[in-house]
Amino acid sequence: MGTKSQLLQWIFLTMIVMGLFFFGFIIGWFAKPEHPNSEKQKDSSKFLKEFLEEMKAENIRRHLRTFTQLPHLAGTEQNLKYAKQIQKEWQDFGLDSVDLVHYDVLLSYPNKTQPNYISIVDSLGNEIFKTSLAEPVPEGYEDVSDIVPPYNAFSAKGQPEGELVYVNYGRTEDFFKLERQMGINVTGKIVIVRYGKIFRGNKVKNAMLSGAKGIIMFSDPADYCADGVQTYPEGWNLPGGGAQRGNVLNLNGAGDPLTPGYPAKEYTYRYKLEEGVGLPKIPVHPIGYHDAIYLLKNMGGQIPTNNWKGALNVSYRTGPGFINDYKNFSVRLNIHTNNQVTRIYNVIGKIRGALEPDRYIILGGHRDAWVFGGIDPMSGAAVVHETVRSAGLLLGKGWRPRRTIIFASWDAEEFGLQGSTEWAEDNAKLLQERAVAYINADSAIEGMYTLRVDCTPSLHTLVYDITKQIGSPEEGEEGMSLYESWHKRDNWTDNRDAPRISKLGSGSDFEAYFIRLGIAAGRARYTKNKKTERYSSYPVYHSVYETFEIVEKFYDPSFRRLEAVARVRGGLIFSLADSVVLPLSVNEYANSLSMYAVSISQIAERHLEQMQKYGVSFVSLFSAVTNFTAAADSFHERLQSLNKADPLQVRIVNDQLMYLERAFIDPLGLPGRPFYRHVIFAPSSHNKYAGESFPGIYDALFDIENAADPEKSWDEVKRQISIASFTVHAAAITLTSPA
Amino acid sequence: MGTKSQLLQWIFLTMIVMGLFFFGFIIGWFAKPEHPNSEKQKDSSKFLKEFLEEMKAENIRRHLRTFTQLPHLAGTEQNLKYAKQIQKEWQDFGLDSVDLVHYDVLLSYPNKTQPNYISIVDSLGNEIFKTSLAEPVPEGYEDVSDIVPPYNAFSAKGQPEGELVYVNYGRTEDFFKLERQMGINVTGKIVIVRYGKIFRGNKVKNAMLSGAKGIIMFSDPADYCADGVQTYPEGWNLPGGGAQRGNVLNLNGAGDPLTPGYPAKEYTYRYKLEEGVGLPKIPVHPIGYHDAIYLLKNMGGQIPTNNWKGALNVSYRTGPGFINDYKNFSVRLNIHTNNQVTRIYNVIGKIRGALEPDRYIILGGHRDAWVFGGIDPMSGAAVVHETVRSAGLLLGKGWRPRRTIIFASWDAEEFGLQGSTEWAEDNAKLLQERAVAYINADSAIEGMYTLRVDCTPSLHTLVYDITKQIGSPEEGEEGMSLYESWHKRDNWTDNRDAPRISKLGSGSDFEAYFIRLGIAAGRARYTKNKKTERYSSYPVYHSVYETFEIVEKFYDPSFRRLEAVARVRGGLIFSLADSVVLPLSVNEYANSLSMYAVSISQIAERHLEQMQKYGVSFVSLFSAVTNFTAAADSFHERLQSLNKADPLQVRIVNDQLMYLERAFIDPLGLPGRPFYRHVIFAPSSHNKYAGESFPGIYDALFDIENAADPEKSWDEVKRQISIASFTVHAAAITLTSPA
Repeated sequence: MGTKSQLLQWIFLTMIVMGLFFFGFIIGWFAKPEHPNSEKQKDSSKFLKEFLEEMKAENIRRHLRTFTQLPHLAGTEQNLKYAKQIQKEWQDFGLDSVDLVHYDVLLSYPNKTQPNYISIVDSLGNEIFKTSLAEPVPEGYEDVSDIVPPYNAFSAKGQPEGELVYVNYGRTEDFFKLERQMGINVTGKIVIVRYGKIFRGNKVKNAMLSGAKGIIMFSDPADYCADGVQTYPEGWNLPGGGAQRGNVLNLNGAGDPLTPGYPAKEYTYRYKLEEGVGLPKIPVHPIGYHDAIYLLKNMGGQIPTNNWKGALNVSYRTGPGFINDYKNFSVRLNIHTNNQVTRIYNVIGKIRGALEPDRYIILGGHRDAWVFGGIDPMSGAAVVHETVRSAGLLLGKGWRPRRTIIFASWDAEEFGLQGSTEWAEDNAKLLQERAVAYINADSAIEGMYTLRVDCTPSLHTLVYDITKQIGSPEEGEEGMSLYESWHKRDNWTDNRDAPRISKLGSGSDFEAYFIRLGIAAGRARYTKNKKTERYSSYPVYHSVYETFEIVEKFYDPSFRRLEAVARVRGGLIFSLADSVVLPLSVNEYANSLSMYAVSISQIAERHLEQMQKYGVSFVSLFSAVTNFTAAADSFHERLQSLNKADPLQVRIVNDQLMYLERAFIDPLGLPGRPFYRHVIFAPSSHNKYAGESFPGIYDALFDIENAADPEKSWDEVKRQISIASFTVHAAAITLTSPA
Repeated sequence: MGTKSQLLQWIFLTMIVMGLFFFGFIIGWFAKPEHPNSEKQKDSSKFLKEFLEEMKAENIRRHLRTFTQLPHLAGTEQNLKYAKQIQKEWQDFGLDSVDLVHYDVLLSYPNKTQPNYISIVDSLGNEIFKTSLAEPVPEGYEDVSDIVPPYNAFSAKGQPEGELVYVNYGRTEDFFKLERQMGINVTGKIVIVRYGKIFRGNKVKNAMLSGAKGIIMFSDPADYCADGVQTYPEGWNLPGGGAQRGNVLNLNGAGDPLTPGYPAKEYTYRYKLEEGVGLPKIPVHPIGYHDAIYLLKNMGGQIPTNNWKGALNVSYRTGPGFINDYKNFSVRLNIHTNNQVTRIYNVIGKIRGALEPDRYIILGGHRDAWVFGGIDPMSGAAVVHETVRSAGLLLGKGWRPRRTIIFASWDAEEFGLQGSTEWAEDNAKLLQERAVAYINADSAIEGMYTLRVDCTPSLHTLVYDITKQIGSPEEGEEGMSLYESWHKRDNWTDNRDAPRISKLGSGSDFEAYFIRLGIAAGRARYTKNKKTERYSSYPVYHSVYETFEIVEKFYDPSFRRLEAVARVRGGLIFSLADSVVLPLSVNEYANSLSMYAVSISQIAERHLEQMQKYGVSFVSLFSAVTNFTAAADSFHERLQSLNKADPLQVRIVNDQLMYLERAFIDPLGLPGRPFYRHVIFAPSSHNKYAGESFPGIYDALFDIENAADPEKSWDEVKRQISIASFTVHAAAITLTSPA
């Protein structure tokens, strides 16, 4: 009985052990395959929080201080030194790999022994006035060498001399007004235009097209000084001796002018200089407003309408030429700038994805600066640096993102987005097949008011989501989210009750990724109040006064605004890299397309009679948008019932999300611009920085308002509507059932 | 004790039950995730065998009989009827979906009331000779209406009259010889050339470039009759009254001439006729050799070298013009052919993939025929029909392929590959992102000797593998595999001890898929003995004599050759659709690139002195190929250790395999040919049907041998070598580690 009882007990024990084991097993079994991601997802949120909180103002301050000590123009020794330092520090932060990737591209520098300047020449040939050769150096930087004087990179060489004509901002409409309404022919003249409104390269193109033999660009206080603000160093306005550097290329996304379409490697075929893409054929030079006064004040000709007048104490007469004592005097440009094939260096850092190493999220921004780059670009680069540090720390704690993250410090952005474009050309196939999103990291601050985000529509939802998880950096807004702070200041009233998000324009390193390759892209920075602050970009833009101190004293003394920007950019790449289902919204894209179609059709309908005459209709475009909306809705529905435990099903849906942006790429490109291939978002030929969506249609409509042959132009409108309709239809198909 | 014993028994029982359950559970657990594919793989082989065996000669015979009863030119009622019949039957066979997809494209037909012909006109303007208006109709088809007379689709209209000049095959080298060596200027003349060697559209282009105002093409017995064979219906040679129809476009892959780059839908913008792509500007007409004799026999001028002489009993004098009695007579073309936008219909059938519905394997071939299409294309279409039937049967047995299979019956291939190209344009994004391979199914037989396969290098291994699983169709070779039979007849001696596989040329529906989109592609058919049979394609090509009977009586009386071709094409799509790891070989691609690089460099090195003078080197290309070979080797190695149980890892590797072909696409296209984008495989400008690999380099070298400015031409060679090197480098990167 005792042994039997023992046996019984033993049996019971075994049974219980086995039962428990079995029970555990069952639980394990069911726990395992059903939702292997839900736990991970919780981890991911926890890690996201840690990742965001780890990015700190004081570190960003330190990074900014470090990388703004010395001028580091693209192609210089110092910019390579910073590249190596960044490489070293990213390695130390813990990235899986960090490489320097170089290209040999065409850059442009002033001749060190023959300075560029503009002069007024009297009738005997004496130079009676010369513009300054350099900006007054700010306090504390007096001993710094290698500050490049203000110049326009890629200007043609030469010493053209002639009568001066003032053409406002040098836009297409300005030249039209001058020539058609004021009856002034600028052929053989030298034009002077103020900076602002459009990209300076387009001003130069317009001047060339009008026959001018030289062009001077000046910063007018109306465009480069804020009301009630002192000039630097007392305030953050542009001093009269300051001038805006900048390239004057018309690349239209080509990258290195000598190797369009291909990376500028050692073995790469290079076009001859005269065949290079977008190089201006006339001399160009930038000046500050102190010098501008001397050129403007003696001009003759008509007094223009008020919208042609800046804030200088002159009458902004158009010319041609001078009057009174200066009557027979002319203006001469003296330009000795050299084009030169030069080695540039990108720093490429990677965190290999754990599950989908072949899916890439890119955070890229440039490192090269015209001088110190206090704002442009180092406020952005400091933010990236802190993001990398925080990501590295997380890696040390066992985190690894689902997808690969690529960090990039681009070179030669200031010379036409060259570093980022060459790398995109070098890796085009990989990027086209594998890149999920590109987040741009140029200047992180351009004002002291609120957040500014420009991005593709599919990122809208994520941007809102992320900014709700970040605190406002503004004093007195403790406990308020960045979303709320932003919402309060810049409500997107005409669209929805939420913070405004803008379309991506052009002019920074996202261009090759977004407009050429069709990779979902976005950018975030702190900005001014657009409603009250009417100046262009920010006053000291591209001048020697972009120092560490201007940020520390005026733009962001606590560095909490930059911290907030770091968290937005970081939060975006974290979520894109680590979410099981990609956080891209197809419905937001549908909404936006719908609005854009209405908007472009309204522009056309200003010419309703002609539309009827030439049989132009937007029906096919609206029908395509309706199709797209339906496809987006049903895709969204399918997403709700997705089995997230099935890796193939998740991958298939994610591929559809990833490739949606790619669907808007037309491999044939926009007319005459083979590297602008995004049918929805590309700069219009006539307004490089923002403009309407559907640029192909917009450009054709613009021609109608200005061209001679309406039949031909309306025919082109029809062709562009057809292309847009097809593209939107084709994009809709990518969202339908995968088979 | 009794109850205790019962309890004990009960407990034991429970334990055993639980233990067994547990044991089963464990086994189930371990059985499940480790290799879910190995069982499937066994199933897949079994199903492949069934699939191949189910395709039967007698059924192919029946399909061919059904679909060659009536003429079914593209754009005609009868061709739509066949489309609907195919749709219905594919549905009955069990496909998941079968759709008719239409486009409105530019076709070209003779004017029914004003026939086309060529005449000899005497000095009084009388037509003393007229070519025949139709071919003698073969027996049994006398009552058939709607047989389109021989014509060259898209010929310009007109009635040019002038002296005749004979220019051999009308190749670039023929015109050069005529003009440079023989000193004959053809400006304002009418040229007569024999069919063969190059695509007829290129002959017309060459004639236009040389200034001719009309061109006549004839079928010479030297090129369209086999030795010792009687003419149809006694044998399979071309009768003297037969002529070769065919389009004379120079589309270079554009598809519909009026909608290049976009599908020809209702809303699509159409260029005006005069802006259409590739339309010849001069009248063109084809004749048979009976008529040709009348034109040739009275010609004057020089007697050319033997390689300009065909097999007619005339001296093949070059002209210009006639002699003797015909001295002042001229030749007149009377062409009234009309271009017309016409609706065409593709039939698209699908089997949805079980696991990866978003991966596509396409089997496509055309349905439209010049007349009955006994060989071209219905011998191919009958084979596709049988393949669909067999696949449908398998579906009924519970099989479903891993990936989606798409079957296509294209329309308007004869008018410039239009049906296939428009569909490719319509679905370009999906195809680019999701298509694994395209297998072409044009004519399945063109000779009675052995198998012919043209395909991309990555398919070599699979082709060998599949043909080993298929029996030889030849009498007396029972028990021998198709591979062995083929190997015996056409050993690829200069490459390896295995059957010869050729490069893909151009001229059939794979073009848009392979050369424009970069989808791995291949084709298989039965062919003649190239070493002994020197005639062009097959004698009755594009004539009314392409009947069901010519196949049944001469080409394949047992229909076992067509059965073998069906099994090759079917086996390829089955394996591509159902293998866990895609059966594409990266090493084969590396081998081929290596050979092509040697070959193109050897062509260049005929001009070694000039290469040195202009600094031209192939070092970068060889270095790229070396890179590619190393990347392919290490990829192949990684493949060996792939965990096939991990769906994501398998997908990642498969994506690399799928996208390899895409890596050779240059989005900028070949010079002047935006739709030919494959850097390795595209028709050279000078030899449309085969030619060297690296067509960009080849074309530039060709220019050197013929052009005036060596510096410019060598510069272009350098540029093309640079592009080729970059492309191969970039392709290599896609094979390295995915992150």
